[in-house]
Amino acid sequence: MFEAPYLLFLGDAPDALAAKMAQGIYDWRPEAVAGQFRMEECGDDLGIKDLSIKEAVEAGAKTLVIGVVNRGGVISDNWKSILVEALEAGMDIASGLHTLLCDQPELVEAAEKNGRTLHDVRIPTVKYPIANGKKRSGKRCLAVGTDCSVGKMYTTLAMDREMKKQGRKSTFRATGQTGILIEGNGVPLDAVIADFMAGSIEYITPENDADHWDFIEGQGSLFHASYSGVTMALIHGGQPDALILCHEPTRETMRGLPDYTLPSLEELREMVLPIAKVVNPECKAVACSINTQHMSEDEALTYLAGVEKQMGIPAVDPFRQGAERLVEALG
Amino acid sequence: MFEAPYLLFLGDAPDALAAKMAQGIYDWRPEAVAGQFRMEECGDDLGIKDLSIKEAVEAGAKTLVIGVVNRGGVISDNWKSILVEALEAGMDIASGLHTLLCDQPELVEAAEKNGRTLHDVRIPTVKYPIANGKKRSGKRCLAVGTDCSVGKMYTTLAMDREMKKQGRKSTFRATGQTGILIEGNGVPLDAVIADFMAGSIEYITPENDADHWDFIEGQGSLFHASYSGVTMALIHGGQPDALILCHEPTRETMRGLPDYTLPSLEELREMVLPIAKVVNPECKAVACSINTQHMSEDEALTYLAGVEKQMGIPAVDPFRQGAERLVEALG
Repeated sequence: MFEAPYLLFLGDAPDALAAKMAQGIYDWRPEAVAGQFRMEECGDDLGIKDLSIKEAVEAGAKTLVIGVVNRGGVISDNWKSILVEALEAGMDIASGLHTLLCDQPELVEAAEKNGRTLHDVRIPTVKYPIANGKKRSGKRCLAVGTDCSVGKMYTTLAMDREMKKQGRKSTFRATGQTGILIEGNGVPLDAVIADFMAGSIEYITPENDADHWDFIEGQGSLFHASYSGVTMALIHGGQPDALILCHEPTRETMRGLPDYTLPSLEELREMVLPIAKVVNPECKAVACSINTQHMSEDEALTYLAGVEKQMGIPAVDPFRQGAERLVEALG
Repeated sequence: MFEAPYLLFLGDAPDALAAKMAQGIYDWRPEAVAGQFRMEECGDDLGIKDLSIKEAVEAGAKTLVIGVVNRGGVISDNWKSILVEALEAGMDIASGLHTLLCDQPELVEAAEKNGRTLHDVRIPTVKYPIANGKKRSGKRCLAVGTDCSVGKMYTTLAMDREMKKQGRKSTFRATGQTGILIEGNGVPLDAVIADFMAGSIEYITPENDADHWDFIEGQGSLFHASYSGVTMALIHGGQPDALILCHEPTRETMRGLPDYTLPSLEELREMVLPIAKVVNPECKAVACSINTQHMSEDEALTYLAGVEKQMGIPAVDPFRQGAERLVEALG
């Protein structure tokens, strides 16, 4: 979709939170990052090389990636001259902001004049097919959650990295804007038209070597009234061989749905397996990935041991413990 | 969305199959139909009054509804002068064809000049909200199927008609283009963007009187790999109190998916109930609606009796037997 190496644009980010997209990209794909661009007012620092637009191009950077989120997701006027400079210097631009690059006349004009491309990763650019449900070669692992935002992306990224570290074949398949910015391609599933959702997942997880694993980024939750249809399409389009059940044990209500409590991991497993078996009778829930960030080390380890006993499969916090045991659970 | 009475445009339909949309509208909303318009070459006849454009307007017709499907779903050139005449005479036009009215320059121009509206019912026109999952007053009944095209629309239309016949409060809620053309409004769910699917269903089934029933047209199937996400959004957006399980017993493989066989009604019930209970713990599967068109009367009655015994709930073919027992099953 768009080319590395990247120049990570931190702009005038007041703090690390505002630039957490840039941090995520650097954490997961340091090899794709040429350096950072910070405006004078910038209050964050990834601790990597500061590059001017000119220096970035000289260092081989192909794409300026906007790694900062403004209030309201807008593209502020004081960024624009820098972005135009980048286009003129020969870089493309990629953004996951709500406000689109392609709606900014100055940027569109500069891109056209210089033969550059503006990548708005929230907008699907492919004409996806309708899913055909046909069995594909290769293996697929999907993260499903008891709720939204419980660590599904982190889990699949960590498993993909661990697989590669072990010298095994794998690919992370992004389905949301942060994942797409990290990987450089993927499908912004929440923006796909209903009839083509499952087809878009088939499209990004095509036939592959028998020993190759796709790690598919999850979205939503089967238990989340707003987005469960998206999750369903991921399961039926992804044809997973292995499911990782993701959970955040301290959360009291579903994200954005104050009237709903979270299901248990057992309830998730009971609901998701028959659904997954429609497209892949061999599908198994192989492990639990637990986000224990709001627990002490002791609490976390006790909790994980309890889940492991109760569910009869490994329970791991990949942030705390690494993803080795999750990968091992794939067999 | 668009106004009755309708002039049903049969155009140059060679036979009844080509004009089955018009037949469906007339079958379900005869009171909304002022008459039919047939070109000289037309080989079909709904058996209702033939009206010229002028006569239709004099008879009060507000919308010309395209009730014929061409090969490829196109709007043929020899229709256009008639459609322009209708716009000039003061009618709006509604169409469910793949080719859009709003992509025909002659029609757009005539509509603008005469202050008329072109309704392409395949295109969502509302900015739907994200679903909030809040409990709404009123009752809702949703048809879910073991496959696509097993009689879900027919079932909900028949139940709505029966409710009205009994003097009870009810509304048919269309979610596909045929249903929308019949009802005059609804959501073309398969064309809605993923994030807003469930929200669009909440939008069309708002709070209502405690004794009012919405009959929500189903789409797809939880077991259909291409469209299951759409079905999921219908269940979680629709918050059904009652489910009607729909099935076509002679079909051997899932529609469009030759590698998949149909699930049983038990499998459907087992999968759908826990899903529906996420948003409405009181939800029940109250009856089965069986499409027995490919069976003899004897075969059908024997089959229905068997299903009724096995499932422990009424099993009815509403086309053969009427919808009384389905409505009765709602309580």
